[in-house]
Amino acid sequence: MIKAIVNVSLKAGVLDSQGKAVHHALDSLHFSGVSNVRVGKQIILELDTEDKTTAMADVTKMCEELLANTVIEDYEIELV
Amino acid sequence: MIKAIVNVSLKAGVLDSQGKAVHHALDSLHFSGVSNVRVGKQIILELDTEDKTTAMADVTKMCEELLANTVIEDYEIELV
Repeated sequence: MIKAIVNVSLKAGVLDSQGKAVHHALDSLHFSGVSNVRVGKQIILELDTEDKTTAMADVTKMCEELLANTVIEDYEIELV
Repeated sequence: MIKAIVNVSLKAGVLDSQGKAVHHALDSLHFSGVSNVRVGKQIILELDTEDKTTAMADVTKMCEELLANTVIEDYEIELV
């Protein structure tokens, strides 16, 4: 079994309203010294294979087709 | 400047409806060989400090007070 960790984040330059909301909430709670907040998704997949090359190819295809909106989001895949 | 990466995920045993939906969608797209999917959040904070000890203490407090719902979620903090 291979575990794939996919981190999906908004591309630089795309307005991150969730990040802005968290930043504002942290300010309201008197956490100073935070200069930027970005919020993304982390998707953890368990795959029934032992071949890392196949796994990486499959997960890349999943990201392109479903997991990430590649117009506005970047994704990173880590296999463990 | 220190960058803190916070990964927030549902505790084991808590129903992950978003994960189930993604799993189902992957099945519909004929991606076989996926045995489990969990969906969490990744929050990236930029902190105006150079002191890792202070940063870790601050971010832990942020997680406890705002970023994670510790009743149903676990969090991991990584400083880079």
